[in-house]
Amino acid sequence: MRHEDPERLTEHVIASPPSPADRDAYRSLVAAAAKTVALLSTTSGGWDHVVPVTDFLSVSYDPPTMLVSVYGLSRIAEAIDESGGWALSILTSEQRAVAERFHDPGGPLVGLLDNTPHHRRAAGEPVVIAGCLAWFRLRTVAAHDAATHRLYVGGVVAMGRAGAIAQRPLLREHGVYRD
Amino acid sequence: MRHEDPERLTEHVIASPPSPADRDAYRSLVAAAAKTVALLSTTSGGWDHVVPVTDFLSVSYDPPTMLVSVYGLSRIAEAIDESGGWALSILTSEQRAVAERFHDPGGPLVGLLDNTPHHRRAAGEPVVIAGCLAWFRLRTVAAHDAATHRLYVGGVVAMGRAGAIAQRPLLREHGVYRD
Repeated sequence: MRHEDPERLTEHVIASPPSPADRDAYRSLVAAAAKTVALLSTTSGGWDHVVPVTDFLSVSYDPPTMLVSVYGLSRIAEAIDESGGWALSILTSEQRAVAERFHDPGGPLVGLLDNTPHHRRAAGEPVVIAGCLAWFRLRTVAAHDAATHRLYVGGVVAMGRAGAIAQRPLLREHGVYRD
Repeated sequence: MRHEDPERLTEHVIASPPSPADRDAYRSLVAAAAKTVALLSTTSGGWDHVVPVTDFLSVSYDPPTMLVSVYGLSRIAEAIDESGGWALSILTSEQRAVAERFHDPGGPLVGLLDNTPHHRRAAGEPVVIAGCLAWFRLRTVAAHDAATHRLYVGGVVAMGRAGAIAQRPLLREHGVYRD
């Protein structure tokens, strides 16, 4: 019954407001969850915006509905607010380098997709990353602010595959990729 | 440039309202994302409620904030609405059998935790599963309905480790566990 030893339980109580140590401890603990990596894309004012995300989930099958959480003051949040639509491309374990290309949230928008094969079904629509495991195009149906972040709930309007070679998703765990 | 072949892109457009085929296709596609498994727990009216969840995420570090999505008409949603608080225990790759014990959302509440080592810091608080990778106790700060589900946003009030032996999380992918 080694698991029942109460001395093995550690407890860190969060102060109000949280201290820097509280935030660091939380960040470290929650990073233990492995998360699938996707690229979130939208277009606004003629520009493409693409950022890697791990904080997304499927909300409902009926109708197909997903959620993504992004930093509320980010450029991509502003772009999604403006465009009302976004896409998620779930990356494969072979696409770590693709994700890394979009790590700088303030990087230049000019030429953003020049070196990344992608698909766009119609002008103004968000891109789908070529070779991804699965893609979803969504229209925002609700947005909720939550602490530093903004939660977008989207209805899936179209979806599909994009020629993935690898069959496993790219994972991120403890702040690093696992491919 | 095999990834650029446009013929490799498949597209399934969702009808409004979605057909059963739309829902099935969505379920199949979105299952490609690997997700970490946690047990969601709460207490209400003197009863413990525990269900496995994969649809949770970290929303914010400041203050530490998480989100969980559950079926809106479920018993656990009703219990969280009543109690205002919940806990997440992130399971390890060795705890697949623990998750499976709680698969029946309508199973008996009597004796629910009899065979599952757990911790409870104070009467009325949700349990933490012994041996888990990390645990978080939360107070609901917002709840949003989204299609068939209800999204609970919670502020983390306490968190810690619980004597995990394995260091990897339990994953679910394509509807099955990967341990």
